[in-house]
Amino acid sequence: MIIDIITVSPDLLVSPFSHSIMKRAQDKGLLTVRTHNLRDWALNKYGQIDDYQYGGGAGMVMMCEPLANAIERLQQTTTYDDIIYMTPDGPRFNQQMANQLSMKANLLIICGHYKGIDQRIRDLYITKEISIGDYVLSGGELAAAVVVDAIGRLLPGVLNDETSALFDSFQDHLLAPPVYTRPAEFKGLKVPDILLSGDPKKVEDWRHEQSIQRTKARRPDILE
Amino acid sequence: MIIDIITVSPDLLVSPFSHSIMKRAQDKGLLTVRTHNLRDWALNKYGQIDDYQYGGGAGMVMMCEPLANAIERLQQTTTYDDIIYMTPDGPRFNQQMANQLSMKANLLIICGHYKGIDQRIRDLYITKEISIGDYVLSGGELAAAVVVDAIGRLLPGVLNDETSALFDSFQDHLLAPPVYTRPAEFKGLKVPDILLSGDPKKVEDWRHEQSIQRTKARRPDILE
Repeated sequence: MIIDIITVSPDLLVSPFSHSIMKRAQDKGLLTVRTHNLRDWALNKYGQIDDYQYGGGAGMVMMCEPLANAIERLQQTTTYDDIIYMTPDGPRFNQQMANQLSMKANLLIICGHYKGIDQRIRDLYITKEISIGDYVLSGGELAAAVVVDAIGRLLPGVLNDETSALFDSFQDHLLAPPVYTRPAEFKGLKVPDILLSGDPKKVEDWRHEQSIQRTKARRPDILE
Repeated sequence: MIIDIITVSPDLLVSPFSHSIMKRAQDKGLLTVRTHNLRDWALNKYGQIDDYQYGGGAGMVMMCEPLANAIERLQQTTTYDDIIYMTPDGPRFNQQMANQLSMKANLLIICGHYKGIDQRIRDLYITKEISIGDYVLSGGELAAAVVVDAIGRLLPGVLNDETSALFDSFQDHLLAPPVYTRPAEFKGLKVPDILLSGDPKKVEDWRHEQSIQRTKARRPDILE
């Protein structure tokens, strides 16, 4: 899978993609993440990529031409399944969307900054808008990193059994149950007896029940 | 404001905090972000911080002792308003939570990995759990970065007028309106006439109406 990212801060995205599981995914050749500096398509030698917004008001808007030129240049060598714009007013990202995107071949992600990108770029080029949640970030870069991470770890071969995604929260509309490891007692708190019982069926039943209880208590909205 | 982060991948967090607005916040002395490698509190010379989970099953669990020791050591020199655990089964982060956290003095954030941290650490030390959305990441680091970014940009003095947070999506239970900048026509698409009218009152009314329409169409759930 190839994920191209257009950003004004490619440096910000260096370390998230060069460590841990995202590094492993790339080392294994399962994922290629490429960042592209929007300023390479700036309109002038000052690197201009934004301008004041029509109608006045605080906040700069990312201009049409640099974005359009960047997108069209990248399209010359790569065919994208989706051109994604990270924006807090987009549909909210969730595990189902991560699952679906992980089955695509090539994605292009546009990171917004300031007040966002000119609406006409959204109208002309963007095929999917994504918000990672109901909050505002200083730019779309971390949002893009989150989406790439959520997708990347689902690619077959990236996670091993030890970190299997199958039992994650949300994969079955339930939150994950509590987990415990050694020691059996810590500061007076003991691991639930049933987890020490050695009875796989009982453990499974307990975990399922705990998942249901936790989901009912914390997130009744996701229960099917 | 001081934000301490306990993580097994401090390197992953280097670039998000050393560029753009988070860099500015720190350069101005308004925000101090410190990462702490959990392996410094590992139980043995192999750097062990996780172990198999009681009851069996795929996925390692982050152990009690290294986390407890790290938290207690940091508490010796800093008093935290909240000790936060980033976890997909926590309450969902939103702009209101960002606003509230931005008024705190000191925060400690724990990043989970693998199957998460031993439940007893959550019971004993964690005062607030946060999920940045209904999806699973390969670790809590990017989630922590998202929270720090959302909080950090709200600190007084971090953003200037040009990037004011006051008119962001969610601050008034509305999505932001579409934005446009030069040129007035791009690939046959024109900027709405009203934004060129020079009438601030008409522009304001149009933007408000667009915000309402967009919110109704995309996110009726957040309309008050």
